[in-house]
Amino acid sequence: METGESGPSDSSWQAAVGQGGGLLRSVGIGSLELEAGGSLPSVTMAYECWGTLNAAGSNAVLIQHALTGSTHVSRGDSEENGWWEGLVGPGEVIDTDQYFVVCANMLGGCYGTTGPSSIAGDGAPYGSRFPFVTIRDSVHAEARLADQLGITSWHAVIGGSMGGARALEWAVTFPERVRRCAVVAACAASTAEQIAFAQAQVLAIRQDPNFANGDYYDGAAPTLGLGLARRIAHITYRSEAEMGTRFGRNSQAGENPISHGRLRIDGGSPVQERYQVESYLDHQARKLVGRFDANSYIVITEALMSHDVGRGRGTLEEALARTAGVEFLVAAVNSDRLYFPAQSEELAAALPGSVEVRRIDSAIGHDGFLTEVGAVGELLREQFFTD
Amino acid sequence: METGESGPSDSSWQAAVGQGGGLLRSVGIGSLELEAGGSLPSVTMAYECWGTLNAAGSNAVLIQHALTGSTHVSRGDSEENGWWEGLVGPGEVIDTDQYFVVCANMLGGCYGTTGPSSIAGDGAPYGSRFPFVTIRDSVHAEARLADQLGITSWHAVIGGSMGGARALEWAVTFPERVRRCAVVAACAASTAEQIAFAQAQVLAIRQDPNFANGDYYDGAAPTLGLGLARRIAHITYRSEAEMGTRFGRNSQAGENPISHGRLRIDGGSPVQERYQVESYLDHQARKLVGRFDANSYIVITEALMSHDVGRGRGTLEEALARTAGVEFLVAAVNSDRLYFPAQSEELAAALPGSVEVRRIDSAIGHDGFLTEVGAVGELLREQFFTD
Repeated sequence: METGESGPSDSSWQAAVGQGGGLLRSVGIGSLELEAGGSLPSVTMAYECWGTLNAAGSNAVLIQHALTGSTHVSRGDSEENGWWEGLVGPGEVIDTDQYFVVCANMLGGCYGTTGPSSIAGDGAPYGSRFPFVTIRDSVHAEARLADQLGITSWHAVIGGSMGGARALEWAVTFPERVRRCAVVAACAASTAEQIAFAQAQVLAIRQDPNFANGDYYDGAAPTLGLGLARRIAHITYRSEAEMGTRFGRNSQAGENPISHGRLRIDGGSPVQERYQVESYLDHQARKLVGRFDANSYIVITEALMSHDVGRGRGTLEEALARTAGVEFLVAAVNSDRLYFPAQSEELAAALPGSVEVRRIDSAIGHDGFLTEVGAVGELLREQFFTD
Repeated sequence: METGESGPSDSSWQAAVGQGGGLLRSVGIGSLELEAGGSLPSVTMAYECWGTLNAAGSNAVLIQHALTGSTHVSRGDSEENGWWEGLVGPGEVIDTDQYFVVCANMLGGCYGTTGPSSIAGDGAPYGSRFPFVTIRDSVHAEARLADQLGITSWHAVIGGSMGGARALEWAVTFPERVRRCAVVAACAASTAEQIAFAQAQVLAIRQDPNFANGDYYDGAAPTLGLGLARRIAHITYRSEAEMGTRFGRNSQAGENPISHGRLRIDGGSPVQERYQVESYLDHQARKLVGRFDANSYIVITEALMSHDVGRGRGTLEEALARTAGVEFLVAAVNSDRLYFPAQSEELAAALPGSVEVRRIDSAIGHDGFLTEVGAVGELLREQFFTD
């Protein structure tokens, strides 16, 4: 990926964007006031974009990534497929011949936006000095990015899981800037259970001796803790039925979990005599550890724990009343047991007007919002991209 | 609690038991061959009992404890209430004026039975040298205890959660010694999801630097790891709805989770600006850490992962066919999301004859098998203790 400072002041920029979809860009948005008080100086927002903004600035679509997602929604001119590959591109549901599509890395992230691994003013990484941020803080930062891109209002803001929380927070914070909003596999406020699972993940990292209270950038990273956090999270992303069908009680090939070797560990490494499902979770852990910063995992997880569009805005209905001009698509994965469909129903019921929750059929659980890209696309085409 | 060697060779023993219900006792059962190979020398089985064994040895009831349970089912003559208080005692459903009730600490446990914290032949604790054991191994050890107590067959073997797995394994391993078997909130074989959640718990302990590969008895115990394991487990023991109703998004009194203090930690201690549900889970963690050994947690969790009454016995139906002479009570908590009612249905369908799954109504989730002692008692009274 390629990083470069770009902005509307550069007159060649719009054409360049059209030819550089799916490549990482970034802009400085200055100092950002934070909901918990104080401010974060010199914030950089990283993003990718696809297509070209029209002269009226009316064809922009914001796609919001999930907890460990990146800005890379779609391959574009890059070498790598995106996490919603097939949804965005020339002739796709979100047709980049017609729409200008943006995906910004969440505030606190590790995909280019200012986060704990970024270099602070004193030349050292923020580490433990990175402040507490909320979903709302990120939305304010994303609005500054939109300002710089010349986008006064979005044709649509779309997200799944934490991306759905970010999309909803956009609609409630800036209803005049959001014409359509898709909230997929997400809810109005993180629940006690979501907070509980998040606490376990955050503790898994904090309790890793390599974490060093967040100041580990000059030493070994807390990879075991981050790997454990991912395992816990990943179980909640999948359904009991999917794991049962896929792995059952099978042993990993060549390994015997009913053996004394089961209790022997090799250094800090996981058990070597495993069930298949353990090997699968080890693999998920390894993959994330190779691409994500542990401090960002904590900061973004804590931001998600804070998610509550009603905070400081009266009742949920009162908070949502300001979105009366926004068209909503609320969708849930039928087998989701982290963001239960009932939570989407509660959100839809509290929205102004009549919003029917659309179901995404998948046996996989929460991750259906990622894997069922066809179903998500159909819902979006039907309601937001009809032409 | 009081520990003493007792056995049928002591002629005053049966009378003494009648007067010492709910006090910890133990017997040596010698060397035990293990399913994974090899043997464990000089095994001690700890147990409590209530009531008096009749001359025919026909009035004995075995109650099997769950993962972190102890032998202390009922207060008896002790100072402490038991974990199924009200179920066992004079005039209770399991009437100790009529029945002789036994609860044995699981093999590998830390409530008196030989486990990793026990002293091995060389005078040092087993620690990392403690072998891998299975539910089936414990049932074999429990059968030796029954032999010593003069119990040739049980009026009933009863258990919930892992206790249910142990009860079922008893019925399949020794069908001629089990006249009735109650399997509450448990299933025929641990599932992929149960294994996955168990892996996370086991890793939480193994990754604690104090764990020292299990040889921590001369130093600090891996309390942070054990506490995290308990938090993960406890979430699965409760329902999403119960946590939502009880805690919602409330902050813990005097704490502000939407604050920069949220990201500061005090040594290795958990976050101090918490949501109520976090404080609740911290409390659950602290309670367990104060009463349970981390090595035993791993050994018993791995034993539960191994739970599969069909292992080496053909299909599940073939394995269960040998229980044709056993009367079963299979019960599930309707809101259980760790041992889903569907898993109880699968077990019941695979049992010989026609067994209807009884529902325990509780909004609490899996822990309903403990909290709904009245409902459990009613089911037992109706089917096993009718007189």
